[in-house]
This record gives sequence, structure tokens and C-alpha cells, in this order.
Amino acid sequence: MTEKTITSSSVDSFVKTRMPAVGVDLGGTKIRAAAVLDSKLVSEPMQVATPSGPENIVQAIIDLIGNFQKDCVLSGVGIATAGIVNCDTGEIVGSTGNLPGWAGTPLKQMLEAKTMLPTLVDNDANAAAYGEASARELMNTSCISVVTLGTGIGGGLIINGKLFRGAHWGGGEIGHIRISMGNKRLCTCGLFDCWEAYGAGRGLVATARDILSGLSSNQTPLCALGEKLTTYAIVDAARSGDIVAQRAMDSWHEHIAAGLVNLAHILDPDAFIITGGMAECVDFSLLHEMVTDRCLPRVGENLMIHKSNLGGMAGIVGAGQLVLDSLAEKQLPT
Amino acid sequence: MTEKTITSSSVDSFVKTRMPAVGVDLGGTKIRAAAVLDSKLVSEPMQVATPSGPENIVQAIIDLIGNFQKDCVLSGVGIATAGIVNCDTGEIVGSTGNLPGWAGTPLKQMLEAKTMLPTLVDNDANAAAYGEASARELMNTSCISVVTLGTGIGGGLIINGKLFRGAHWGGGEIGHIRISMGNKRLCTCGLFDCWEAYGAGRGLVATARDILSGLSSNQTPLCALGEKLTTYAIVDAARSGDIVAQRAMDSWHEHIAAGLVNLAHILDPDAFIITGGMAECVDFSLLHEMVTDRCLPRVGENLMIHKSNLGGMAGIVGAGQLVLDSLAEKQLPT
Repeated sequence: MTEKTITSSSVDSFVKTRMPAVGVDLGGTKIRAAAVLDSKLVSEPMQVATPSGPENIVQAIIDLIGNFQKDCVLSGVGIATAGIVNCDTGEIVGSTGNLPGWAGTPLKQMLEAKTMLPTLVDNDANAAAYGEASARELMNTSCISVVTLGTGIGGGLIINGKLFRGAHWGGGEIGHIRISMGNKRLCTCGLFDCWEAYGAGRGLVATARDILSGLSSNQTPLCALGEKLTTYAIVDAARSGDIVAQRAMDSWHEHIAAGLVNLAHILDPDAFIITGGMAECVDFSLLHEMVTDRCLPRVGENLMIHKSNLGGMAGIVGAGQLVLDSLAEKQLPT
Repeated sequence: MTEKTITSSSVDSFVKTRMPAVGVDLGGTKIRAAAVLDSKLVSEPMQVATPSGPENIVQAIIDLIGNFQKDCVLSGVGIATAGIVNCDTGEIVGSTGNLPGWAGTPLKQMLEAKTMLPTLVDNDANAAAYGEASARELMNTSCISVVTLGTGIGGGLIINGKLFRGAHWGGGEIGHIRISMGNKRLCTCGLFDCWEAYGAGRGLVATARDILSGLSSNQTPLCALGEKLTTYAIVDAARSGDIVAQRAMDSWHEHIAAGLVNLAHILDPDAFIITGGMAECVDFSLLHEMVTDRCLPRVGENLMIHKSNLGGMAGIVGAGQLVLDSLAEKQLPT
């Protein structure tokens, strides 16, 4: 575990909302945390491996928070967690394969009892979306649609400066919109033709396999990889001039565009922000051209697609800033 | 033109927001209007044919409003118009084929100058959505998605009790989300594979034509209709037991479901409300089953799909109620 102190210049102890919050990003393999103020990290991030079992996870988070409390007065704690969260109660209401047994954990209640700090819990995609939008000072807008391209596709929506969570904490399941008919490709969720079955990293590999079937190693070295074919192998091959890999990459951009076109016609957002590991592999100029070309002119002409500025830190920044903004609102005269 | 008086019992002249507003629904062929209070009509609707040219249309609306003013004190005027509207200024910013020359009309300004009544202008799909949601007392919800199935598909979104209009007054162009790949069917907008090219009335006819190609009049009397094939002919034939027509109806329900599945995964709405002329032809039980079946369980299990209660009056009710609610908000202490 690395540990760094927070500079005292970033802390104004006279105004509660000028004190940093700790943002925590809880994933299946690691828990990361940092102090956050003004939509920025104001400490080095710390990280520990995710232990097994809810009790151990909660204790690990408490220990991380304790490390920050040694150095400064904190205003609150924001947690970005995998799974579905009831943000009113701070309870995990939907499970995730990466954190067995996590559903049902009253996380906010458990943390507040131990740390005495106001705590806010949200889904990791929502927190990342909030981080991306607030770091770009895009909160004073009608709609920001943040799309996380990774192994799957997730997303978060900021509408009128607030996270939009849907009626049953299930908004933003954008990876599972259908972009094709005919049950052509099975998604890991059990449905067919979901956006993420085409547009996520896993989708790129599936598209490349479709193209490779019937080709031989004489035509592209990708054939020899067989089951070892990865997104990185495809991206590297395309950059090296392999035309088969380039065709897979073109199709992959078409598939990403299809989902963005749907979001654009429903939401007419001020901007899209693309984040997640696979964002690094996107040709943003090509993607913008494709999306604009497939939108009604009045929807496409104003369309903005940004690449994430925060990368892997978006969840931490968003979780921290969510609790800061929530405290600031509570201080408004009612 | 029919004309009826407003009962004085529906008017409380001591409280401005207890006075009715006039809701006006401006379409390509007719202008309809009625007095609205508490999300209900409180007069018989009146209608006139839509004259040609913006000046004549505005005068016709003023004349209609004058008819209501004879009978009661009005609090304001709400206009539901085809085309894209800047709701801040009440100007028509995007044209529609049905109202040539309408774009650029500063409608709110022109009406307020003549009637001296506070006026609010919105897109007809938005107004209809507001009417449907407010008449069902669904404004205190996270998200209501109203889908208008007619010749095309339109829609309106109510998010946190307010109409969501998008960043550039273009939100809710839901008819143009893509539900298929491969440029299979051209939409009237010039794009391919739009939802409305499959799920609207026009889409049902196109689907039936696809099925009919290669069949003969011995197999279904629909073949003999040729270019005269209509949605009503297909719906009637299906109800009479024609299996070809029934297959077209099944596909049409699948196509409607595809778009609703996408909206559900993005928005997780409290409810869908289906309105428009083609809503009459929908088997709501079948549609609900299809949508639920194609959603993630946590999205599908809470899904509600209502059929419109207001039918063709939704735009009038919504336009009237929008101006009433806007006046009520202005009376809140700031």
C-alpha cells in the first residue's frame, strides 16, 4: 500500500465543504481511495486488494478512510461500488459476480456507524459519470451521457446537473440496448444483440472471430492466435497495417456508433464522454463522423464526443465529489 | 366550428391558477383548442381547419382563444405545435413538412402581444407527453416515457416531474433510434433502420409487404390490394384470422418492443404510456410480455406499459396544463 499526505493548503477547515471528502472505488480485485476536492484528487491514491466477504470489505474501507483521517479533517465519504445501489439508503440491492455476497450489505449504515462521517454510496458507473462531468465543469447542462467502454459497456447520465438513476436504480444499463434484430449474437447477460456484445472489448473480439472464420494464417497472423485472440492483439495488428484487423476495427467503430446514435436521438445530450479501458483504442475522429452521419441533422450537428480526462480515477473523483455536493446542498437555506 | 360554454363552477376567479388555460393543438390539417384545468378538459373542444401561412395560422389561434374569453377569465395559453420549438423564447426553430414556412415564427411573442395572456409554446409530442403524465398523476416520478405510435413514432420524456427537452430542443426523437444493422429498411428521414421504419403504421405496412412478396391472392386477400394496402386492412385481416396478416402483426409487435427495450435499459422508467392512432391496434398484453422477455430481469420486472387515457386530446390537455403549472411555479416564493 502506498501512502501520501494531503497538503494542508488544500484544506480549509473553516468551511465544511472546503474540507476534502474521501472517494473510494470498490472493484472486484482492488479498493482504491483518494482525497477529493473541487472535482480533483488532492492526495495520492491508495489501494488495497479487495478481501473476500462483506465484513472484510467494509473493514478494509474503514482502514483506508482512517489513513486519510490521520492527515486531515474529512467532510465525508463517497463510495463507488460495483452492483446496484439504493442511493437513498446506501444499501447494495443488486449483486455482481465480482463481489460474491455483496448484495444486501447496508454499506452506508455500517460505515457511518464506525467513521461518524456522512457517507454516500453509488454505483461505480454513476460515480464515474459524475466525476467526468464535474471535472469538465459540465454540471450546468441539460444532459451529459458518459459511456464506459470496457469488457462490457456501462454508463451514467447527468440530467440537469444531477445523476439520473431511473425509477428502480436500474437506469444506465445502456450496454443492453439492442442494436440488431434476429438474435445474431448472444450477450453474456443471456439476451441477444445487446450493444455490448458488439461495441465492448468482448464485442470487438467476437467481430474479429466472425471475420477470421474461413481465413488462414497466410492471410493474417491473427488466425494463429485461436482462442488467445485479444482486443490488444487486434488493435496492435490494425496499427501494424493488418487489413483484416482494420476491418474488425472499422466494424467495431460502427457498432459503438450505433449505440451512441440511439442515445443521441433519445436524449439530445450536450456531450458524450467516452471512458473505460477500450476508450484508448477508439479513433474519436472516425467515431464522431460515423455518429453524425447516422443522426438526424438537427441531432447530429451539435453532437460532441469527448474522451475521458480522468481515466481510471473517474470513480474516485465522482464518489468524492458526490458527497461534497450533497453536503453543500444540505447547507443551502431551505 | 362547434362552440360550448365553460361552466362557471370550474372557474375560481380568486386564485389565478384556479382559472383555466386554453390548450391549443396545432396540426397540419386542423387547429383544436379547449379550456383545461386540473389536467382535464373543462370545455368542449373547438376546431378550425389550419389555414395556410404563419400570419393566418396565428390569427386563427387568436380567434379561437377569443371564443373562450367570451365565457371565462383565462390564466394563460398553451400551444402544442408540430415542429421544433425553443421553449424559452416560444419560437419555432425547426420546420415540419405539414406547416410550410412555420419555422422562424416567434409564436409566443406574436400571441402575447395580441391576447395579453401568458403563453407557452412546446412541441406537440412533448405537450402530449405532459398531458398523459399529468392526467394520470404521474408527475411525482423519476421518469415517464410517452411513445406516440402513428404514421411515424414520436415521444416525450418526463424526468423528475419536468419535460426533458434535450440540449438543443431535439430530445425525444425516439422514432429515429436504430433497431437493426445492415441498412435494411430506408426511413422517410433518409436514415436506415430507424425504429419508426418498423414500429410505426408505415412500418407495419412495409413489414406486411415484405411478407406478401412472393405470395398470391389465393393465399391472402391482402395481395390483391397492391398499392392500396393500409394499416387498417392489415389489422382487420389479422382480426378476421388471416395468418399472413397475423404474422405481420406479430413482427410489428416485436419491432415496437425493440424500441421500448432500448428506452427501458437507458431510462428505467416508472412507466411507458403508448398513445397515437396506432395504439388502438396494439395488443398490450403481448407487447408487455415481449418487452419484459427482452429486458434484463431487474429492468423488466418493474416495467409498466399503459395505453393512453386521453387519445387525441393529450396535446390540448398537456399544453394547457404546462402553462398552468408554469404559472403556479412562478407564484412560489423565491
